[in-house]
Amino acid sequence: MIRTVIVGGSGYTGGELLRILATHPQVEVTMVTSREYAGKPISLIHPNLRGFYSINFTNFSIDKIGDRADTVFLGLPHGVSLNYVPKLLEIGLQVVDLSADFRLKDPQVYKYWYGIEHPYPDLLSKAVYGLPELHDRELKGAKLIASPGCNATATILALAPAVKMGFTPDLRFVSDVKVSSSEGGAKPSEGSHHPERQNAIRPYEAEGHRHSAEAEQELSILSGRPVKVSIVPHAISSVRGAMASVHMWSSEVMEDLEIWKKVAEFYRGRKFVRIVRGGIHPYPDPKYIIGSNFADIGFANEKRVMRLTMFSAIDNLMKGAAGQAVQSFNISRGFNEDEGIRAPPLRPA
Amino acid sequence: MIRTVIVGGSGYTGGELLRILATHPQVEVTMVTSREYAGKPISLIHPNLRGFYSINFTNFSIDKIGDRADTVFLGLPHGVSLNYVPKLLEIGLQVVDLSADFRLKDPQVYKYWYGIEHPYPDLLSKAVYGLPELHDRELKGAKLIASPGCNATATILALAPAVKMGFTPDLRFVSDVKVSSSEGGAKPSEGSHHPERQNAIRPYEAEGHRHSAEAEQELSILSGRPVKVSIVPHAISSVRGAMASVHMWSSEVMEDLEIWKKVAEFYRGRKFVRIVRGGIHPYPDPKYIIGSNFADIGFANEKRVMRLTMFSAIDNLMKGAAGQAVQSFNISRGFNEDEGIRAPPLRPA
Amino acid sequence: MIRTVIVGGSGYTGGELLRILATHPQVEVTMVTSREYAGKPISLIHPNLRGFYSINFTNFSIDKIGDRADTVFLGLPHGVSLNYVPKLLEIGLQVVDLSADFRLKDPQVYKYWYGIEHPYPDLLSKAVYGLPELHDRELKGAKLIASPGCNATATILALAPAVKMGFTPDLRFVSDVKVSSSEGGAKPSEGSHHPERQNAIRPYEAEGHRHSAEAEQELSILSGRPVKVSIVPHAISSVRGAMASVHMWSSEVMEDLEIWKKVAEFYRGRKFVRIVRGGIHPYPDPKYIIGSNFADIGFANEKRVMRLTMFSAIDNLMKGAAGQAVQSFNISRGFNEDEGIRAPPLRPA
Amino acid sequence: MIRTVIVGGSGYTGGELLRILATHPQVEVTMVTSREYAGKPISLIHPNLRGFYSINFTNFSIDKIGDRADTVFLGLPHGVSLNYVPKLLEIGLQVVDLSADFRLKDPQVYKYWYGIEHPYPDLLSKAVYGLPELHDRELKGAKLIASPGCNATATILALAPAVKMGFTPDLRFVSDVKVSSSEGGAKPSEGSHHPERQNAIRPYEAEGHRHSAEAEQELSILSGRPVKVSIVPHAISSVRGAMASVHMWSSEVMEDLEIWKKVAEFYRGRKFVRIVRGGIHPYPDPKYIIGSNFADIGFANEKRVMRLTMFSAIDNLMKGAAGQAVQSFNISRGFNEDEGIRAPPLRPA
Repeated sequence: MIRTVIVGGSGYTGGELLRILATHPQVEVTMVTSREYAGKPISLIHPNLRGFYSINFTNFSIDKIGDRADTVFLGLPHGVSLNYVPKLLEIGLQVVDLSADFRLKDPQVYKYWYGIEHPYPDLLSKAVYGLPELHDRELKGAKLIASPGCNATATILALAPAVKMGFTPDLRFVSDVKVSSSEGGAKPSEGSHHPERQNAIRPYEAEGHRHSAEAEQELSILSGRPVKVSIVPHAISSVRGAMASVHMWSSEVMEDLEIWKKVAEFYRGRKFVRIVRGGIHPYPDPKYIIGSNFADIGFANEKRVMRLTMFSAIDNLMKGAAGQAVQSFNISRGFNEDEGIRAPPLRPA
Repeated sequence: MIRTVIVGGSGYTGGELLRILATHPQVEVTMVTSREYAGKPISLIHPNLRGFYSINFTNFSIDKIGDRADTVFLGLPHGVSLNYVPKLLEIGLQVVDLSADFRLKDPQVYKYWYGIEHPYPDLLSKAVYGLPELHDRELKGAKLIASPGCNATATILALAPAVKMGFTPDLRFVSDVKVSSSEGGAKPSEGSHHPERQNAIRPYEAEGHRHSAEAEQELSILSGRPVKVSIVPHAISSVRGAMASVHMWSSEVMEDLEIWKKVAEFYRGRKFVRIVRGGIHPYPDPKYIIGSNFADIGFANEKRVMRLTMFSAIDNLMKGAAGQAVQSFNISRGFNEDEGIRAPPLRPA
Repeated sequence: MIRTVIVGGSGYTGGELLRILATHPQVEVTMVTSREYAGKPISLIHPNLRGFYSINFTNFSIDKIGDRADTVFLGLPHGVSLNYVPKLLEIGLQVVDLSADFRLKDPQVYKYWYGIEHPYPDLLSKAVYGLPELHDRELKGAKLIASPGCNATATILALAPAVKMGFTPDLRFVSDVKVSSSEGGAKPSEGSHHPERQNAIRPYEAEGHRHSAEAEQELSILSGRPVKVSIVPHAISSVRGAMASVHMWSSEVMEDLEIWKKVAEFYRGRKFVRIVRGGIHPYPDPKYIIGSNFADIGFANEKRVMRLTMFSAIDNLMKGAAGQAVQSFNISRGFNEDEGIRAPPLRPA
Repeated sequence: MIRTVIVGGSGYTGGELLRILATHPQVEVTMVTSREYAGKPISLIHPNLRGFYSINFTNFSIDKIGDRADTVFLGLPHGVSLNYVPKLLEIGLQVVDLSADFRLKDPQVYKYWYGIEHPYPDLLSKAVYGLPELHDRELKGAKLIASPGCNATATILALAPAVKMGFTPDLRFVSDVKVSSSEGGAKPSEGSHHPERQNAIRPYEAEGHRHSAEAEQELSILSGRPVKVSIVPHAISSVRGAMASVHMWSSEVMEDLEIWKKVAEFYRGRKFVRIVRGGIHPYPDPKYIIGSNFADIGFANEKRVMRLTMFSAIDNLMKGAAGQAVQSFNISRGFNEDEGIRAPPLRPA
């Protein structure tokens, strides 16, 4: 039984971790911290969890954690996790960080995108980028897991087979992402106000989305070429789910079967990747993944102009956040990859 | 391991049963029938289930079922189940019928509401109305379970404590129900067409909703008085969830705590009833139940005019259909009541 | 040309007034005030109005208004309008107040519901409750119009023919209202956060909604009997539209045609009331009113139990706020009742 | 007063035409045809229009039309308009065809995309492609107007300034379009069933969308270069609105102001194009156009990688269909371009 602490447990990622871990057979949640809600019952903030947890939120305290935890999930804002991670590692805990703080390998790149010098550059190289489809082996036994961003996850999973299997000579890509409102977190804002968000189709952070950095890092490593990626998110009125559409030009006409085979080969053995092609809805749709950790990968092939599109559909709170963090944690601990995240998606939802 | 067959497995109730049973440790789904999709893979119709079932839909055949089933879930339209049930019982199978065909005890009442003479009036008395909160004991070992309708379930669970614990002298009630689009089933129609349904607040079947009959039967039995109930559903733009608001007048001012205690006493020990009072959202909301079998029960108490409202929130496909059917099945088989339906609700969704 | 000022123009009611008045042939908007956005262009806050207004928001100043206005629309929070109205009247301006400050006639009732002594009780009797279907004559030439609340409007329009034409002996009613998210105004909050609001079916202010006071006042005057009304709003995931369902018991079986005729008689000649009965959607639905000032009124008649339901569907920002304010203004000025608000509803939306 | 007939008036485009023309001062609607609903009142199918039209739907008859019409709007399916147009022109009527039948100039291209030989190739050259921002002059006095498709309109308006003003050396583009459910028309289908459509992010017709042909034709003419365009639509859960995002690579770093100026220059004097840059929502969003004929055009400029995105937001039933048809009609008749379509967009909706 892994004693587990969730630091920053009042947001959507924290809530999703609590939802998953409530039925994870190898995990006992011993503490959930929240500065804002310390002393309050978990179900006050997460009314879905009424009846599932008897503990209250507490304040974070590094002293108290040591005795109660084997693993700490950090659901803190970017720039805050930074300060906790070294100490948590020092006292021997495993850290799964859901912020962006340890995702980039190169401190220069970190500085470019996040505007500050990284205070622990050595930890950057020790952290494992928690995308199991690319880093399965490194995750085994990992002490510090940097769990990927949702838009980065969708983008990388769409592009990885394309750049690795040679679908295109392109070295620069735009990932046109459609994102649901839960991706913005639990804090109300003008853009998330229901009357303003419902029916919106609204580009945002369209000139330098930070997840581009992760995607470029991972795809460049994977392909051995310097890949550039622009992520352009569009806020739409779904509540859960993100869809990356990455359009590219191939250098010759490809057959569907060939593409299918290469994608299948690339993702062979990966439990959480499903390849979608044909059927009533011939392309992936995050709607059919809701509540699960799947990434549904598909493609369009317009031979007339030799244009390919790679599609990647995920649940932004699962494969895009909490689910993937648990998947990486499972691998790191030698559990079944899908322990606690095995239930089928909900439909319709 | 209970060998289980789902007859009529292509609709939303069938899909929800398949979703639940995919991880139910005591159940093996051996056959799923669909006249329309026989021979087609389950995931063609239920894309969320891609990767969970390797069997295809088959045609229903009474001969084939005998060898492969211990329990049969019937997800057929009203008036169709009628013809299957006697034979299935005869060859020794347990039947959980999700249609309205065996819910009413009185053949006259059945005729009034459904317009035809019931061909098997004796089976009406043998069937157990599958609302475990009222019929727990009778469900143990039950051979024929008539699983309640969603609007009836919400209405009965809201009213039961009120009529039993004496909150009101009223003997007639209107249950103002707000229902999600999945309640109408998987077949497209003009009212369910997305551009027409989204943003709708649309009363329908407002002058004799058939679920009224079940509610009257159960509440009259429970209270020992002849209770009349009008169910007035309103189609709104949620996808899942139903909310019954039943307004009534008390004969004296009641205190909140007194109401709370009586509701709690009425539902003592019931795993799937949560009483909601206070907090950020002080009344129940089906939103926080999505994907689970809970019924959240709450109340409003406007002392100024001695008006009470009982609220009951359910997921129409779970507690309102498939989840409750599995709950009744679990009880009938002596399993834990929550086997296979233990996961917390999804939030946000 | 009526020179018109909108005080408090950055909210949804202000925006809706601006939208309407942009094409009102008798009105020139000379000033729009906003404390928060003074100096900013109107289209910054109301992006739909880009290109329609060249003026910026300004700070409110009683001195400046005198020279520029004939009529002032007050879109201020409850309790704030109070302080402006007497002075505006004094300098000879017409005031259309969209807050609750002058809606109630009885200072005692005001105190009961709003918790403070009304500072200008004499103005309460001079104000005209701006519901043209009841107060057409008094609105002509009115200097102070107290524009009704949205839930009150829906409730009164549903109940008025019932209490006046003797559909029921009941003297107390519950108005079960389903409300859209724009009703809560333009300020983000936890309940209006998109991930929390979408798919919600959430009762709120269910134990003493303030609009009950207006409804009781108007219906008691109309029927000559002391009518009690409890308004119970439910937040759902539409953006626009409110629906009041008021259930009642008749003392004898009524025929549909009789009900229809009486409702038609009651609302004879009223341009903005449409009676809905039969057709594909036999009851009113706010969806088919969006963007217009109509109130669609209908009913259900369950003879079996002598239960009637009166339905009233409005667009909460139009007939429930800005549209009705302009309608009353038109009448007060002797313009056509529908000047500027003549366009058909939008569909689908 | 132009006597106007709408042929095929029961769909969404027909309904939107009726909504617009109800208040168009130069138009009298004399007949509305529908094979399916002949004899039925218009408000049965278009409940928003209750009270606006006293005529019923009739069957189409070429003989009857001649006496009653000056202009005929054809809201028929593709391949059906074909058969009506020549005769209508012959008897001297003006035709505004909202189908795809006369949009393409080259019969070969028509055959490639629509699979049949065009029976009236000479009419193809006489038809004016009804996009006033490109064909203003030709529209004056036009007898046959081929009104553009919605996704084509959004795509062309986004790309036109880019290809004309030299933002990019690219000659092939992908237009990633996000489309609302009303774009699919009024007929229910599995994909449009509310429980399946709500929360969907679903690519469709992603390998040869027919509107690509129109876009290629118009952009090639405009730029004098052979432009290739792949339109990739994604069905999302808005009801109205379409958003085209067209990503491209510039050959040198461009400044925002330079881009802004060139777009403004390109669209100078066009009443229905608004350029959006900066503010709370710095890019266009169809949400703020709902119910109006505007196209909001904007751009993103990621200098780091010299990537530009052109955004174009329209209301698919207005600028994407009925509104644009009326705009072209107005121009053809010498009316103000915005006659009948002058009202601001609705917000929030």
